[in-house]
Amino acid sequence: MMDQANFSFPVELKQVRITDDFWEKEIRLVREQVVPYQWEALNDRVPDAEPSYCIHNFKAAGKLNEQAKNKDFVRPVYSVERFQHLPEDPEKPEETRFYGFVFQDSDYAKWIEAVAYLLEQQPDPELERIADESIDIVCAAQQPDGYLDTFYILNDLSKRFTNLKDYHELYCMGHLIEGAVAYYKATAKRKLLDAACRYADCVAEHIGPEEGKLRGYPGHEVAEMALAKLYELTGEERFLRLGQYFLDERGREPCYFDLEHQLKPDGGRRNRYYQAHKPVREQEEAVGHAVRAVYLYSGMADFARLTGDESLKTACRRLWKDIVERKMYLTGGIGATHIGEAFSFAYDLPNDTAYAETCAAIGMAFFARRMLELEADSEYGDVLEREIYNGALSGMDFSGTRFFYVNPLEVLPEACREDSRKEHVQPVRQKWFGCSCCPPNLARLIGSIGSYVYTQREDAVFVHLYIGSRLEKQLKTGSLRLEMESWFPWEGKVRLKIECDATEPCTVALRMPGWCGDCRVKGAEDAQRRQEKGYLYLTKVWGSEILELDFPMEARLVQADSRVREDIGKAAVMRGPLVYCMEQADNGENLHLLRLEPEAGFTACSLEIAGRQVLALKGKGWRQRPTEGQRLYSVYTRPQFDPVSLTWVPYYAWANRGEGEMQVWSRI
Amino acid sequence: MMDQANFSFPVELKQVRITDDFWEKEIRLVREQVVPYQWEALNDRVPDAEPSYCIHNFKAAGKLNEQAKNKDFVRPVYSVERFQHLPEDPEKPEETRFYGFVFQDSDYAKWIEAVAYLLEQQPDPELERIADESIDIVCAAQQPDGYLDTFYILNDLSKRFTNLKDYHELYCMGHLIEGAVAYYKATAKRKLLDAACRYADCVAEHIGPEEGKLRGYPGHEVAEMALAKLYELTGEERFLRLGQYFLDERGREPCYFDLEHQLKPDGGRRNRYYQAHKPVREQEEAVGHAVRAVYLYSGMADFARLTGDESLKTACRRLWKDIVERKMYLTGGIGATHIGEAFSFAYDLPNDTAYAETCAAIGMAFFARRMLELEADSEYGDVLEREIYNGALSGMDFSGTRFFYVNPLEVLPEACREDSRKEHVQPVRQKWFGCSCCPPNLARLIGSIGSYVYTQREDAVFVHLYIGSRLEKQLKTGSLRLEMESWFPWEGKVRLKIECDATEPCTVALRMPGWCGDCRVKGAEDAQRRQEKGYLYLTKVWGSEILELDFPMEARLVQADSRVREDIGKAAVMRGPLVYCMEQADNGENLHLLRLEPEAGFTACSLEIAGRQVLALKGKGWRQRPTEGQRLYSVYTRPQFDPVSLTWVPYYAWANRGEGEMQVWSRI
Repeated sequence: MMDQANFSFPVELKQVRITDDFWEKEIRLVREQVVPYQWEALNDRVPDAEPSYCIHNFKAAGKLNEQAKNKDFVRPVYSVERFQHLPEDPEKPEETRFYGFVFQDSDYAKWIEAVAYLLEQQPDPELERIADESIDIVCAAQQPDGYLDTFYILNDLSKRFTNLKDYHELYCMGHLIEGAVAYYKATAKRKLLDAACRYADCVAEHIGPEEGKLRGYPGHEVAEMALAKLYELTGEERFLRLGQYFLDERGREPCYFDLEHQLKPDGGRRNRYYQAHKPVREQEEAVGHAVRAVYLYSGMADFARLTGDESLKTACRRLWKDIVERKMYLTGGIGATHIGEAFSFAYDLPNDTAYAETCAAIGMAFFARRMLELEADSEYGDVLEREIYNGALSGMDFSGTRFFYVNPLEVLPEACREDSRKEHVQPVRQKWFGCSCCPPNLARLIGSIGSYVYTQREDAVFVHLYIGSRLEKQLKTGSLRLEMESWFPWEGKVRLKIECDATEPCTVALRMPGWCGDCRVKGAEDAQRRQEKGYLYLTKVWGSEILELDFPMEARLVQADSRVREDIGKAAVMRGPLVYCMEQADNGENLHLLRLEPEAGFTACSLEIAGRQVLALKGKGWRQRPTEGQRLYSVYTRPQFDPVSLTWVPYYAWANRGEGEMQVWSRI
Repeated sequence: MMDQANFSFPVELKQVRITDDFWEKEIRLVREQVVPYQWEALNDRVPDAEPSYCIHNFKAAGKLNEQAKNKDFVRPVYSVERFQHLPEDPEKPEETRFYGFVFQDSDYAKWIEAVAYLLEQQPDPELERIADESIDIVCAAQQPDGYLDTFYILNDLSKRFTNLKDYHELYCMGHLIEGAVAYYKATAKRKLLDAACRYADCVAEHIGPEEGKLRGYPGHEVAEMALAKLYELTGEERFLRLGQYFLDERGREPCYFDLEHQLKPDGGRRNRYYQAHKPVREQEEAVGHAVRAVYLYSGMADFARLTGDESLKTACRRLWKDIVERKMYLTGGIGATHIGEAFSFAYDLPNDTAYAETCAAIGMAFFARRMLELEADSEYGDVLEREIYNGALSGMDFSGTRFFYVNPLEVLPEACREDSRKEHVQPVRQKWFGCSCCPPNLARLIGSIGSYVYTQREDAVFVHLYIGSRLEKQLKTGSLRLEMESWFPWEGKVRLKIECDATEPCTVALRMPGWCGDCRVKGAEDAQRRQEKGYLYLTKVWGSEILELDFPMEARLVQADSRVREDIGKAAVMRGPLVYCMEQADNGENLHLLRLEPEAGFTACSLEIAGRQVLALKGKGWRQRPTEGQRLYSVYTRPQFDPVSLTWVPYYAWANRGEGEMQVWSRI
């Protein structure tokens, strides 16, 4: 058992009210655009978008349950061979057939989770009514024994739990639990929570370490995190045990996935994709499908905190280091290859064929917050900040109705159309996807952003992100109210107003951003001050006080480790937590001909993009003259460069002005 | 009809004797290693190499024919659904089953063609005996009506000619014809030629423009070139007609491939792969599978010459330009993407994911020689030279027993193993391939290299390549003997000794290499001299004379058109016709850290690689200091460079010293 003194705990969303100029806009977008739009999408009512069939499937399962009440009813059986089912006639899907991918249910679960976060922060009777109705639809699909996965319910119940490796039943369960926990917390309504608990109990009836049960675990992780939440909400040890079992069993030999599919063991090669090649505590490198990986690591971090398991924490630290020191894009994107949506080898971070799935960046935010709960170290906070302002946020456009699944760091639109190696890269955001995991995932991250700003201990508040908000916290002898005014990500000024009527001392711990070389904190001069792992700890009996934080944001040139071959001879521009990029809209085409001038410096200026103001950066650079009138290959002549003015925009804001080239890393 | 005054004609291999130091070694390798080795491979006798099953299939078909003589024999029928067939038990292939890819027969055809070229130049009774026996095996497989494709013979004859699009029957026919023509020319033995003619007649019985026949044509081109050769050898118009029909019908609407497979027309998108998206004369861009494309264009050039069809010639010129001005690697490699083994879009020439199949470079050599026959223009000769010394020759190692299918311009061995996007790229040459089109293709190119050196007209000899050799040519009133001594590719000195007893004037036309800025030709001062399209024409009544040619070879830095994004900020090294590269064996690892010094110059020096002497180049450059002790991303600091000595070796010679990094284009 490890020393739990370093732990901190998530704050309840209820404790926080976001007032931040930047994030309030994003949350409003989620509330006004994303969530209603996604409800339409889940109901197949978005013109010209790929249908989801998600709600269709729940309704179909409910209908089948109705029909099954008739004693003469014979349950139809369909093949479960295919991973995606499409109606023969797209105009006429059959009423009680399953359509979409095997994991289609999870899109609903993420949507209801996002809805819950919105409701927890602001009442909305109409939204709550829609949500309640949706819960009725979903719960009507549940089987008498608690089972709740429409793919098997509609196709062939006898085949359930026969393909944990690839068919996402436990993944869908995990998301359902997360949605249910959030909805209960927001509304105190138990219906979905009860359904989720019954489903978890049904799973535990069939899967587990006990004699006669399947010794399986999720092919796509998320249930681990979800069961941790369910345990924390309900206090029921059986949910903790199920999650713990999933972690302990994973990767043990003989590998369950091999047994399940009668595959010859291949030394773990195949199971790396699932992070099932080794017991989780022995895993040294982040490998395989990137979203699965960081969901697993997040679950491991949860259980390390809940059970005090030092070996899990050590593994989490090791895997974290492997990602952020060797396998993460500047934007926080992870998963360098579209083949298997996976981590590539160390330092292999190509910009134009990057995968960097939106969900994976979101997963890194999950992982980062959980590592912060294990120990306050600004390294985790820095990455959390990097993810939310860059690699995750880039997944959505300014209208809240268009999405990226893949977040490249360099785009040539022609290549996306003409070069099949880049067909996973879209030069503009899309309305929806057949596999639409990312849009609702982003909605739930943004909707719950308040729970990433702070963590707490009995006698301490940690400020990890500088997002304008109000937090209320009970202390033993009174309460502490913290009001944060912030101009992030545009200016590094933060004003913390603290009102406290408690008579005991309390610590306010402030993250000193890694990108800032000169952090200044004024106020509370009488507090006991110490700095540790990038956090400034201010301890005192608080009254009514104001802290003025100043983290000067200067645009800066950034380089990659020289082992990143794709970035050699190149540099990128950052300012505060924001990664910047060049777009064709500002800099013309052929961005590859541009060179940065390292000595030139930058000017910040306001720029309107699709109706929103962002801070653009202007600088001087060079444009190489094209080799005109030469053959494809000619004798080398020193290239000629003309001075040009260059413009950078925040990476998250790219592709809001139509199709064009973009690049994060430029020649220098 | 166009003016045929520009035409020249191939020389017979018999007229030429290669004496060249460089190519004599390669031919000896083909004779002593490649051809015997490949015979073993075709017979599945190479340990640890993927079995070919090629000869097995012919023998199996012969056995089936024997059994079919029994009246009670019922022909077994197997599915033709799969493109590749493997024995259930690899240890025990069944005697009369087909194995390998649908096009497996063609490997034999290319092998016998290579054998023929060797025999044409030098008698070898033992080799001829093996060849004759192999021909007996092949001919025993032929059906009574002339049909000869073991895939359908062994699986299901009723299905023949039902999948011209993808199942390579006409491709196999084409290669069989080419092998048969070569073997007849070498030995005057008719058996294989007769079999090939009968197969062509059988095809013409079922396929063609006449009522009741299938209006099909080859999915993989080569038959066009082959039928041109067969017509030229036999003078039989019916072979010309069949080839002409293939060209005329290709790409006409409705597309035969769509009809054959009941596919909805998609505006030609799908059929671009087959160059069947438009009538051949209307095709503007080189698209689709690169080998198919250049085989088609080579056939078009043949028919342009044979029929004087100006529209075909115009199309050939246009397609040629598109390749060499926009889609060809420095090495002459074509086909930038492994997806579809195909051309990518203009200027998309990535170095590390290049496909650049050996067969495609060989196909470009075919195309170049045929364009030279249409008009002597040094542009074609320059590319021919580029292919044979670089992108084609790199396909084989110095032992003649290891082969590249893919010829990248940059290799990081770790990436080939770890990054699925590069799994088509091998860092070392392989023994054999399941799909082994390249090794025998290279054998037949090298075996027939003599036929690429010259072309001729009644009163003229064109020297396209400076490969030491002797040529004998009949003129009206006597004969001309040309003896070329050459130090290519190491030195640009060439000595041409001419002995002529004819009393009429004759022209000797010499290609002035495009890479040489200062071509000097001494001798025959009394000849009428004119220069046109890169050829120096010397016309006179020749006696006994010596021409001294000097094409100074200086190592030079080369740049790519600035639209080639992958080569921006980079340069490559060439010397004469040779492309050079850096290998880890000489320059250490992390080649991406190296920079060329443009002003430094080069020193040439001899280097032994795997028992052979090559001319290496030494120069000065810089090695960037690694960003040690920094995080993955850190504030930009001007990189530090240490001076280093750099070594380049000829590209064709790379990967003869074990596994290691290689790069053609380096930072400058």
